[in-house]
Amino acid sequence: MNTSFTSARRSPGFVPARIRAIAPYVPGEQPKIPGLVKLNTNENPYPPSPRVLAAVQRAVDARLRLYPNPTASVLRDKLALLHGCRPENIIVGNGSDELLAMAVRCFVEPQVGRAKRSSSLVQFFSPSYSLYPVLAEIHGAEKKSVSLNKDFSMPSAAELKQGGNWDFRAALSLVTTPNAPSGRAYETAELGQLCRLQKGVVVLDEAYVDFARESALDLALQHRHVLVARTFSKAYSLCFQRIGYFVGHEDLIEALQKIRDSYNVNGLGQIAAAATLDDLGYYRAKFERIIGTREKLTSELRDLGFEVFPSQTNFILARPPRFSAERWLKELRKRKILVRWFSDLRVKDYLRITVGTPSQAAALVRAATIILRR
Amino acid sequence: MNTSFTSARRSPGFVPARIRAIAPYVPGEQPKIPGLVKLNTNENPYPPSPRVLAAVQRAVDARLRLYPNPTASVLRDKLALLHGCRPENIIVGNGSDELLAMAVRCFVEPQVGRAKRSSSLVQFFSPSYSLYPVLAEIHGAEKKSVSLNKDFSMPSAAELKQGGNWDFRAALSLVTTPNAPSGRAYETAELGQLCRLQKGVVVLDEAYVDFARESALDLALQHRHVLVARTFSKAYSLCFQRIGYFVGHEDLIEALQKIRDSYNVNGLGQIAAAATLDDLGYYRAKFERIIGTREKLTSELRDLGFEVFPSQTNFILARPPRFSAERWLKELRKRKILVRWFSDLRVKDYLRITVGTPSQAAALVRAATIILRR
Repeated sequence: MNTSFTSARRSPGFVPARIRAIAPYVPGEQPKIPGLVKLNTNENPYPPSPRVLAAVQRAVDARLRLYPNPTASVLRDKLALLHGCRPENIIVGNGSDELLAMAVRCFVEPQVGRAKRSSSLVQFFSPSYSLYPVLAEIHGAEKKSVSLNKDFSMPSAAELKQGGNWDFRAALSLVTTPNAPSGRAYETAELGQLCRLQKGVVVLDEAYVDFARESALDLALQHRHVLVARTFSKAYSLCFQRIGYFVGHEDLIEALQKIRDSYNVNGLGQIAAAATLDDLGYYRAKFERIIGTREKLTSELRDLGFEVFPSQTNFILARPPRFSAERWLKELRKRKILVRWFSDLRVKDYLRITVGTPSQAAALVRAATIILRR
Repeated sequence: MNTSFTSARRSPGFVPARIRAIAPYVPGEQPKIPGLVKLNTNENPYPPSPRVLAAVQRAVDARLRLYPNPTASVLRDKLALLHGCRPENIIVGNGSDELLAMAVRCFVEPQVGRAKRSSSLVQFFSPSYSLYPVLAEIHGAEKKSVSLNKDFSMPSAAELKQGGNWDFRAALSLVTTPNAPSGRAYETAELGQLCRLQKGVVVLDEAYVDFARESALDLALQHRHVLVARTFSKAYSLCFQRIGYFVGHEDLIEALQKIRDSYNVNGLGQIAAAATLDDLGYYRAKFERIIGTREKLTSELRDLGFEVFPSQTNFILARPPRFSAERWLKELRKRKILVRWFSDLRVKDYLRITVGTPSQAAALVRAATIILRR
């Protein structure tokens, strides 16, 4: 039997149809263009605090040869203190993306045949984080996308019931709050109402919560079936080191711990995140500055004719005037300004623009002014 | 409806029976005891090279706020050069553990009901890496453990056929080579024979290959269904930063890339691993030293009455004299020497001892001499 690379005969058999059918998630570009104003992936424009950098620097030594703490216990202790819960209520992941994928694998049964079962259902609103449907596909689960209202507000529980499309028995419901790419936050009261009605696990994905007016974290501490996802990437300038976490009831956390890779969180990331929690004042000052820039940018773009949704995140969703959003993407890119555009029907007329430093925001407004003047 | 923490009523429903039934993998201890001689988790006793530490040091700056390269492209280019293949033949993971778990999820269908199907089967030899059965359980796949010969050699293809227990159609076969915890390597010729007979995907897990006489990497470059797993943890002193990789046919690699977390490999880990490949001379000298210490330790323990298997790894499997292996574990621990003992029937009479520095090995021999003298 010839199994060398020249024989194509057996190839398709090694990759199951389920995997071949997956359209993978496409992350935002990370190009290396000198002088680029990068406003496409919602990173914090400010570096980690000097104390965090110093703590990581000090740790770069012979210890790299050793395995990291398998349960991120120092970091979990600090997070428990911060959130007023116990370390058993927290699991740390290789970014919150890893934890979202684990939640799907842990709480959702792969679909068998064509049968529709709530136990195999991953449910989410649209538009929201475009990773969710990909995670469902990878797991062989059923996915259900339910439309937000036109202004990106969440349909009320009564509307969801009447609509008949939302499944209150879904094994897993994923809710981004504040939402991306809309920038809109949901009130804890409405999220609480939704949680009380759900029979399956609910993940409230609070990646952007540090730029918002309120957090729904208490819901994870009040309900047995609610997890809140947080990340050190967006607000705490640690994208590079991949640290996210879930807060929730110890039964859910214990189940997730069981399916976790043994050493899923790299050691320097654990050290960076722990040092971050010792220097929160630095970061809170930066949140204030980013929120200030966001409000100024919103107002200046509105003056230029952009329709800008009110944002509680570190980005804005804006409908540009005159040309299509896709053309704006290209025009801005020509001027070395990178923003994000999604081909998804619901948001294809919008640009998602990360709030950068005041000078990055000014560069964007300048470029937009020039483009409009032509 | 009361869903607060005080209500236990709904709790079990949130965690599927499949997850509740899992007995999680137990990693080796990582205790922080001053003066401990840590010979339990097969870490390299020597630190990363000064150039690698300097490269990581230099990278600890404002860039931590940015996402890392999503496909580890710089590292993959270097690895492709090293192995004489293309970057499309390589996927980098958050340690090779992540990739092993991904291989199970990618190539194996979860079991439906009680039906036995080769497409749902994860197969491995026993004893080998105790993570494999856990990965199968987590995925809801069937697992099959087939005994190695008494001297931990691999049954020949003819024996496997006659035995009738090994499944040549298994969706995924995982083979650790050199094997842990035996330390024994299989010859590329016998691995090649096995690969040629398998109808499903084969992963050759070469975590310890740098301490062995030969590598089976070519099999991954010759066959469409063979992957070789490598790690920077054991030989390259980077456990802390979680870097492993697979080499294989681009169809298999592409399938795995589809189900990967978008930013699965932390940035400082990518930089450390790439710098490692620029300084291989440093590491190769260390491999020689570890192999030298291994041979000396083997001979000294044999002089004390230990039965020691010949090893091609950075650890040895040794059957201690006089007392049970479990008792030896405790006696050594009292003297601040930590080794590994597995309760598994096949190896419960043995200790697995990491080869440390010459002085660590000498400390072990001294302690063993004292224990035997009492």
